[in-house]
Amino acid sequence: MRSDGRRPDQARQTRIQPGVMPMAEGSALIEVGNTKVLCTASVESTVPRFLRGSGQGWITAEYAMLPRSTTVRTPREVNRGRRSGRTSEIQRLIGRSLRAAVDLERLGERRIVVDCDVLQADGGTRTASISGGWVAMAIAIQDLVEYGVLETTPLKEYVAAISVGIVDGRPLLDLCYEEDSRADVDMNVVMNSIGRLVEVQASAEGRTYSKTQLGLQLDMAETGIKSLISAQQKLVKF
Amino acid sequence: MRSDGRRPDQARQTRIQPGVMPMAEGSALIEVGNTKVLCTASVESTVPRFLRGSGQGWITAEYAMLPRSTTVRTPREVNRGRRSGRTSEIQRLIGRSLRAAVDLERLGERRIVVDCDVLQADGGTRTASISGGWVAMAIAIQDLVEYGVLETTPLKEYVAAISVGIVDGRPLLDLCYEEDSRADVDMNVVMNSIGRLVEVQASAEGRTYSKTQLGLQLDMAETGIKSLISAQQKLVKF
Amino acid sequence: MRSDGRRPDQARQTRIQPGVMPMAEGSALIEVGNTKVLCTASVESTVPRFLRGSGQGWITAEYAMLPRSTTVRTPREVNRGRRSGRTSEIQRLIGRSLRAAVDLERLGERRIVVDCDVLQADGGTRTASISGGWVAMAIAIQDLVEYGVLETTPLKEYVAAISVGIVDGRPLLDLCYEEDSRADVDMNVVMNSIGRLVEVQASAEGRTYSKTQLGLQLDMAETGIKSLISAQQKLVKF
Amino acid sequence: MRSDGRRPDQARQTRIQPGVMPMAEGSALIEVGNTKVLCTASVESTVPRFLRGSGQGWITAEYAMLPRSTTVRTPREVNRGRRSGRTSEIQRLIGRSLRAAVDLERLGERRIVVDCDVLQADGGTRTASISGGWVAMAIAIQDLVEYGVLETTPLKEYVAAISVGIVDGRPLLDLCYEEDSRADVDMNVVMNSIGRLVEVQASAEGRTYSKTQLGLQLDMAETGIKSLISAQQKLVKF
Amino acid sequence: MRSDGRRPDQARQTRIQPGVMPMAEGSALIEVGNTKVLCTASVESTVPRFLRGSGQGWITAEYAMLPRSTTVRTPREVNRGRRSGRTSEIQRLIGRSLRAAVDLERLGERRIVVDCDVLQADGGTRTASISGGWVAMAIAIQDLVEYGVLETTPLKEYVAAISVGIVDGRPLLDLCYEEDSRADVDMNVVMNSIGRLVEVQASAEGRTYSKTQLGLQLDMAETGIKSLISAQQKLVKF
Amino acid sequence: MRSDGRRPDQARQTRIQPGVMPMAEGSALIEVGNTKVLCTASVESTVPRFLRGSGQGWITAEYAMLPRSTTVRTPREVNRGRRSGRTSEIQRLIGRSLRAAVDLERLGERRIVVDCDVLQADGGTRTASISGGWVAMAIAIQDLVEYGVLETTPLKEYVAAISVGIVDGRPLLDLCYEEDSRADVDMNVVMNSIGRLVEVQASAEGRTYSKTQLGLQLDMAETGIKSLISAQQKLVKF
Repeated sequence: MRSDGRRPDQARQTRIQPGVMPMAEGSALIEVGNTKVLCTASVESTVPRFLRGSGQGWITAEYAMLPRSTTVRTPREVNRGRRSGRTSEIQRLIGRSLRAAVDLERLGERRIVVDCDVLQADGGTRTASISGGWVAMAIAIQDLVEYGVLETTPLKEYVAAISVGIVDGRPLLDLCYEEDSRADVDMNVVMNSIGRLVEVQASAEGRTYSKTQLGLQLDMAETGIKSLISAQQKLVKF
Repeated sequence: MRSDGRRPDQARQTRIQPGVMPMAEGSALIEVGNTKVLCTASVESTVPRFLRGSGQGWITAEYAMLPRSTTVRTPREVNRGRRSGRTSEIQRLIGRSLRAAVDLERLGERRIVVDCDVLQADGGTRTASISGGWVAMAIAIQDLVEYGVLETTPLKEYVAAISVGIVDGRPLLDLCYEEDSRADVDMNVVMNSIGRLVEVQASAEGRTYSKTQLGLQLDMAETGIKSLISAQQKLVKF
Repeated sequence: MRSDGRRPDQARQTRIQPGVMPMAEGSALIEVGNTKVLCTASVESTVPRFLRGSGQGWITAEYAMLPRSTTVRTPREVNRGRRSGRTSEIQRLIGRSLRAAVDLERLGERRIVVDCDVLQADGGTRTASISGGWVAMAIAIQDLVEYGVLETTPLKEYVAAISVGIVDGRPLLDLCYEEDSRADVDMNVVMNSIGRLVEVQASAEGRTYSKTQLGLQLDMAETGIKSLISAQQKLVKF
Repeated sequence: MRSDGRRPDQARQTRIQPGVMPMAEGSALIEVGNTKVLCTASVESTVPRFLRGSGQGWITAEYAMLPRSTTVRTPREVNRGRRSGRTSEIQRLIGRSLRAAVDLERLGERRIVVDCDVLQADGGTRTASISGGWVAMAIAIQDLVEYGVLETTPLKEYVAAISVGIVDGRPLLDLCYEEDSRADVDMNVVMNSIGRLVEVQASAEGRTYSKTQLGLQLDMAETGIKSLISAQQKLVKF
Repeated sequence: MRSDGRRPDQARQTRIQPGVMPMAEGSALIEVGNTKVLCTASVESTVPRFLRGSGQGWITAEYAMLPRSTTVRTPREVNRGRRSGRTSEIQRLIGRSLRAAVDLERLGERRIVVDCDVLQADGGTRTASISGGWVAMAIAIQDLVEYGVLETTPLKEYVAAISVGIVDGRPLLDLCYEEDSRADVDMNVVMNSIGRLVEVQASAEGRTYSKTQLGLQLDMAETGIKSLISAQQKLVKF
Repeated sequence: MRSDGRRPDQARQTRIQPGVMPMAEGSALIEVGNTKVLCTASVESTVPRFLRGSGQGWITAEYAMLPRSTTVRTPREVNRGRRSGRTSEIQRLIGRSLRAAVDLERLGERRIVVDCDVLQADGGTRTASISGGWVAMAIAIQDLVEYGVLETTPLKEYVAAISVGIVDGRPLLDLCYEEDSRADVDMNVVMNSIGRLVEVQASAEGRTYSKTQLGLQLDMAETGIKSLISAQQKLVKF
């Protein structure tokens, strides 16, 4: 039994509230256990320089933690003038994952920025950002379709993410912060609604792992992601 | 009648929810009309260098807007590597206002950081930050008293703030964004529970103003602040 | 009696020397007691992006202190890569105050940059920058009129500024550094030649203040500003 | 057949020259096809703050590309004042991978910095940095043992890395730049000498991938890494 | 005849006013033709890290131009967050030159910072900074002697500097801006009161120069520097 | 006899390998004793803003040291966000020296960037960068001629550089690091193939020097430079 009473293969209670930020084109507040991330999607009419004139769109993500999303206050990154390596790595992961859900040519020359602001951090903020960010982005995209800006939806698949770790030699699904800080292996899996992988990142933090373990963890992740995608499917249809 | 149906001397509906950020020593979500600011207070055991060994404490504030607190996405300040002049001006105002509510010697050598993160911006974010930040700070301070860290409370007064502006030649209390952008004079007033002023800032944005007008605006502000302090008094007693 | 022998409502000896920086379109050295600020005005043919094509001009200010304007050397801001919050707050105040003196549409699409470099700092550098900066700016503007670049002058009013503080419970006009560092309330007033207010900033630094005190301080400031404007009127006519 | 005549499961010719930088405690020049990375290891007597007094050591990596390691000149990162997200992500990966090869407690309170400077970039610079960086680090560590600074070696395992990608639907081992830029899936695998995984990163760049494909790519990577580790074993024994 | 009527080997009129900045330990305003530099010396009780505990002192210089020291406004370096290459090169030259005038061991563990702020720039600002900076520094040092902080003066020699250039194939002493911008060779010479060289920097800007030309320019510089040192000798004796 | 057995007027063994960086338009690895600098030349089709439309080209240089080019690791400049004063001074010197070798009008509106990356530093890295950088640049330029992009070569002269210092009162040619750190005078001379000077920089580091000494050092430098230019002439003809 885990510290919060879950079985090893049991994900945390997840709740996604759409439309919480009325000024954004799309938004969602995702709660995964005690982790809370506010996701918004903004549609802009310009694309990065390397895409100008290509007819193709782009999707990027920004990630930040509110100072008191953590039990001890985390200083803002603006204080030292730049994002940390960890933040830029997370932003790149979210961006890549969301782009895998969209037909960028069909999106046309526009950029969607997905902002993920962590209100409360209890492990799994990057995977929650992907699962919740997808909802914010999808709402913004479906609005473009509804208002006739786009003829057909560029959404290709639902995409969600979850973590799996090896703690005390045992694989556990959806680590909370306390488990994450004791994990020997930390793995993040991003998968889409037809069961195909978008991203796998598995890092040995103390002990290495075997190919067999990797496979077991993948299977565990798949179950968790299916349930997240079910939640997404109730909120956005395309 | 104003765009949202208010009388000239009528403040917006205000709601302060305490304790919304469980990881912080003190917190409050303040909603003033459509403006929403999440305020947290963090108690730290070190003071700035100029106070070390003085036995005296300090209070500072940090202010930021979420990118989609605005109808058009506002880029994060970390992107250009530093806070804007506007942000640092607001942070200094909030810090000064909150320090005026506390006996810093009685607080002892500790620092309270009050973070004000704007979730939704519809005018008056800096005054809402002061009124809500006071609640977050006061909760954190009263906890120090309750847990016996402090013998007596260093809280001296309730402090709240409101804006008044001159729009189309007429003074209006508690401007929303649409009014603020048309205002000829923009004034922020910070006052405490015994009716004394902490800060007055009145800027001509297009037209100048007379001493008489300043007086009328001050009176209007006082009424608004009294009502905000009543709300604070229901949440924190000392 | 004050430390330098002045009465409470007596401003310091002020001297404004126009034309001291021959390479600038306008310039003035203002001395207020021991405070000395070198002000220059530069006329540029481009306006900020938000005004392009609007036919309207703009006025901004930059403020800096020479390292040995102070009794202990103050490090240059370039050393830490950016302006302090205090500096940017002062720059914004000077810019706003000077814009209130000018009809920006009549100025046409050009930008005037007013540089205020403090040679010696003995309190009141921001108010001296406004009073002296107005002269530098007005000289540059009158030259545009004289050379036929502008048909009629965009100058609307004279504008000057002064500080008032409460020290040991007593209001004092035009604080020197020693008084300023002991002041309970620090107030800066910017006013124009028809007695209308441009900016009022009154901050409680230790003790709060009443509306009555605010009124008395305003009256004191008005007397001081009238005398400063008289000095300006001898130097620039329009 | 691939553009350079290799079979799909054939890695590029690899050559590791140890000791090329005589001023460093350890060094190696690794050439993987046309990719060349100069790796040095520096032993320092201080550890990061979070480890002081812990008796434990630390290993970090820095990664940079010479401007003309690429066919079009790449501007130096110092020009824009900070590392890119890509660079810091690579640095973190190299550091994590090398730490997995060392018993940090046995290393004692010292820090090893492994610098990886890319002289020529033709795909796979991050994996080459890991394989070559291991050699530079191991030389530095074995010197500490030889000179009696350490009693027993803290080296636990050989560690090497290689990339696998899916290009035109087909898995290819050890992508060169031209293949990498066309790959639908880009995967980096870090493994140790007993066949256990240190890191797996598999990103969909255009098309997603199945669990079966992931498994096939892992097998391919394993063959390549075994051969790299053989090369390491000829250079460093422990 | 030169544009301002001087002979080729004639330096500009020079005037050095000591003590112009009463808050500094030493100061001097140097005017060389239309070039004006305000120099101050600040004595600090700490030395750079590499000298701590060595018993030896240090001298550094900072150089900056007021925005309107030039006919077209020059933006402040704080705007782009760092000093330009030109500025740091000048600062290093001034620092080196002034250190050559002082016995750093006799100065003891203290640092003198010489600030050179250009009020008006008409060529030769770096050489004027050295000649004027020496006076500011020497005044500060002689004060340390007078007040008994130092038993004997650490001043070794007077040091001054001047420029020589080749314009239209002809050597000219002490170039003004207009000449400097047309010069084929630009040379700065720093020399002390016993005729020994401290620094020679001669750069071909368009055409190269012969050893014979270098010798002639050196002779010309020597005459100019002797006259500058005479002026220094009237102001500071040791 | 010197520490490495050389006579006072004897330069170190020098070797220049052209074409070592196949991805660059021009490249050379220069070894001067134990100093090794990798030089590459990149031809770009844009010129700095001040030359646009002028028909004239430009040449700039960038200089950097690999962290372990030194016996103790030197942190990368990107870590503190900007180049040091020393680096920008060296870059400016290399750029100026190389521009003196080229007819910039004949080069046409293109920019050549010469990157000098120090692999090993044992004194004289800036002079080696000039001598080696010339070869990299000349190879790139001759290619432009060969491929018919330029009709006639814009190369005017060979240019090389060497250092001379006064150590223990005696002039020494081509200082290694150990000599350089003990030198009383440090001088760098840049000269072209017809014996004309491009740059002379002679700095007193501890003791000053006479005009006679300057002359002797120049003669010594000339001999060293002639031999370097002979080496260049074997590699590039024009």
